[in-house]
Amino acid sequence: MDKIDLFARLGPEIATVDQAMHRDMHGLARKKPLPDTLQKVLEHALFNGGKRIRPLLCILAARLCGHPGKEVYPLAIAFEYLHVATLLHDDVIDNAETRRGRPSANKLFGLTPVILAGDFLHARCMFLVGTLGGRRCLDLICGVTEAMVAGEFLQLANAQNFNQSEKDYFAVIDGKTALFIGAVCETGGIFGGASAMEITALKTYGANLGKAFQMQDDLLDYLGDPAKTGKTGGNDFCEGKMTLPLLHALDKAGRTEYDFLLGLLKGMKNERVANLEEAREIIRKNSGFEYTRNLAEKLINDAVASLSFFAAARDKAVLEILVGLARYVVTREK
Amino acid sequence: MDKIDLFARLGPEIATVDQAMHRDMHGLARKKPLPDTLQKVLEHALFNGGKRIRPLLCILAARLCGHPGKEVYPLAIAFEYLHVATLLHDDVIDNAETRRGRPSANKLFGLTPVILAGDFLHARCMFLVGTLGGRRCLDLICGVTEAMVAGEFLQLANAQNFNQSEKDYFAVIDGKTALFIGAVCETGGIFGGASAMEITALKTYGANLGKAFQMQDDLLDYLGDPAKTGKTGGNDFCEGKMTLPLLHALDKAGRTEYDFLLGLLKGMKNERVANLEEAREIIRKNSGFEYTRNLAEKLINDAVASLSFFAAARDKAVLEILVGLARYVVTREK
Repeated sequence: MDKIDLFARLGPEIATVDQAMHRDMHGLARKKPLPDTLQKVLEHALFNGGKRIRPLLCILAARLCGHPGKEVYPLAIAFEYLHVATLLHDDVIDNAETRRGRPSANKLFGLTPVILAGDFLHARCMFLVGTLGGRRCLDLICGVTEAMVAGEFLQLANAQNFNQSEKDYFAVIDGKTALFIGAVCETGGIFGGASAMEITALKTYGANLGKAFQMQDDLLDYLGDPAKTGKTGGNDFCEGKMTLPLLHALDKAGRTEYDFLLGLLKGMKNERVANLEEAREIIRKNSGFEYTRNLAEKLINDAVASLSFFAAARDKAVLEILVGLARYVVTREK
Repeated sequence: MDKIDLFARLGPEIATVDQAMHRDMHGLARKKPLPDTLQKVLEHALFNGGKRIRPLLCILAARLCGHPGKEVYPLAIAFEYLHVATLLHDDVIDNAETRRGRPSANKLFGLTPVILAGDFLHARCMFLVGTLGGRRCLDLICGVTEAMVAGEFLQLANAQNFNQSEKDYFAVIDGKTALFIGAVCETGGIFGGASAMEITALKTYGANLGKAFQMQDDLLDYLGDPAKTGKTGGNDFCEGKMTLPLLHALDKAGRTEYDFLLGLLKGMKNERVANLEEAREIIRKNSGFEYTRNLAEKLINDAVASLSFFAAARDKAVLEILVGLARYVVTREK
């Protein structure tokens, strides 16, 4: 399935997810009107053309397990709420200027409304998961939230550590992304009445997809076309962030190149553009990009292989979309 | 029951609540070690000699309904977690210097760890409530969290509004305090297997106690003895905060006194001490304190009356403690 075909199939689903979020928010406001500013922050943060990857994965997983109904949507949107709550708090923490090409919520509304709106979405997420998914799903999603917090702390602790290992890198991306996406797929499976083996397969699919997604992000930060990504490249290196391409290159480089690369990393603030080009070259020479790309592809192959468990699924189209999504993750240019 | 007797009975309970929180945190860390900084923030925020009012009310409510066992403790601590999560985010929002006489967490650890630790406790609370209290309790507590957020927004929106009504005041304290304490008592009742009537009685008791608690706080801010409260008096007036004594006085005052009082409120930053004394006098003259005290006492009488529903309770001692707690709320001097 190519990208155009994939998006053509997902488009209507994304629209339905957005409708479900609107319906949920309107339902809340009907019970008791939301304060004006809260409503504005939620509108800004939730309805921004996001790709709704987490709700989609939950819906597709449920459908793959033989639950084609609409009942999964109110559960699925809980994961977008949790994701957006995390983004809101992250933007406050990073004092971010922009998000998805628009001014960030904290720039528009200030710190207080954004922290509070994050808490609001957090509570709404837990309510939906506990009520619609039951104890097992609530357990999963609370665990994932705790892991996301732990992942953030780990990243903070690693921030000034230039001696990180690949293990440190994966501990952070597991906590921040992969466990969540794995749990989203798992929850869809549980909701769809999947067997224990099917649930394990869905979890593997989601966690691998999440890891590979982050690795592709890290590659695009070095190699992406700014016209396509919409981001200035080299941010990670500039901020001293040790992503996998860099970690692998440092690991493979000889002493001279190692010292030189680390020197560039520490001195980035001064001569950004020239240094970035040099860094990119040393990483390339030490196969940092190749290694990352190969590993991401391996993870995606494993993700797809885990879906072979569902080869007998009634709904072949869903299986195709899930495979297409996995392939897209490592070929996307933005 | 006098204050000394009340605290003598509650002391061992408070110690057991603290033990339950320690046990829960150790259990989490055994599954997967918590990042160092997270552990430090949690330790600082959770174990600080707090009175554990929310867990205690949940435990006492369950016991009143005939559930004397220890099983309620892991559920009860969830409410301290949620309370502390709220305090952590509040301290970031207010950029507070101190909390309970010690440096605030945000002063010690900075914004990022404190926001994240709040999110962590939030998730842990929802997990415990959903798992141990079931759907009905989760529904309640998520609703309360949403109401607390809405209450904060309302307070923000009111901040520069000198034309507030008593209704605005109660909308804020309901959202920020009363609904939560009502829900805590309700949850204890549900856990204890209470009837629908009993649950309503417990909810009334808790909500009234919460409202009266806040009103007593507002009185102490004007009239308390700083040597006992540990706080400089007059903070609310100084910050332009419209609490009930002031609202009532503005409502009762003639035109001249109204203008004068509002003038003092707006000009507080210049001549704090002298102006505060004058404001206090005008509020007293217009029975702002008397009105607030009477209303708080009425709420507490109603709270105690609602407990008459449990006059046949097997555990008379629990009933006595709950009545004692309610009476204490409006007689406390700190």
